[in-house]
Amino acid sequence: MRRVVAQGTFDLLHPGHVHYLSDAAAMGEELHVIIARSGNVTHKEPPVVPDEQRREMVAALKPVDEAHLGHPEDIFVPIERIDPDIIALGYDQHHDEQRLQAALGERGIDCEIRRASALDRNDPDRLLSTGRIIDRILAERSD
Amino acid sequence: MRRVVAQGTFDLLHPGHVHYLSDAAAMGEELHVIIARSGNVTHKEPPVVPDEQRREMVAALKPVDEAHLGHPEDIFVPIERIDPDIIALGYDQHHDEQRLQAALGERGIDCEIRRASALDRNDPDRLLSTGRIIDRILAERSD
Repeated sequence: MRRVVAQGTFDLLHPGHVHYLSDAAAMGEELHVIIARSGNVTHKEPPVVPDEQRREMVAALKPVDEAHLGHPEDIFVPIERIDPDIIALGYDQHHDEQRLQAALGERGIDCEIRRASALDRNDPDRLLSTGRIIDRILAERSD
Repeated sequence: MRRVVAQGTFDLLHPGHVHYLSDAAAMGEELHVIIARSGNVTHKEPPVVPDEQRREMVAALKPVDEAHLGHPEDIFVPIERIDPDIIALGYDQHHDEQRLQAALGERGIDCEIRRASALDRNDPDRLLSTGRIIDRILAERSD
């Protein structure tokens, strides 16, 4: 049985998230998702939705077997605990795969790194990022 | 096999939606969800997320077997087609159950009307309505 880990912020859920998680789930038989804590989101604005609520919503999605909040200090702690066979990166996640592989090796975590495929973000009929949903709310609902 | 119908707008998904749908699913063996089209949402502001994307996101939730967009003119058309044993109303949906039962009877639809239970909307750790999520976005992201 291959265990797969996916990870991300998952702030306002959209079909890009579902696509990523479906793709990740198809890489194995059991999908665990690690949800970044707000305090650890440093490369973009902090999420709108509270940590535990984001975890709860990801856990409610069909492809997901278990959803976990990340560790406040050490991102490798939950990965060590889950002990995955595969880490599935999102198509747009800015991780250097070689550095990640090296860091996993230093921690004694032996797993394969794979990339999920992309949905077409420019699909005019869908809001395929949390940022686009927020932009629409600001455009339509600000006084 | 009891077929259950739930319905709503499902704009920005939150744990209140998941609770409603889990409750509805537990009333039978197969849960169908009817998602209101934007043009038919008249009792509150129109949804932010496009119709088909809202349908897609509801379909991705574990309790849901099938998600359908509503009919543009006649709300009873999908109910006739699905032919449910139970219609599960959300705890806060403003439907007069007796009038709804009478209207279903006139259309020859014989089903039971039940109410889902409530989650505590005032839970300080969760944003349990689309409106609260939007308010937080406006408060945190408006310039």
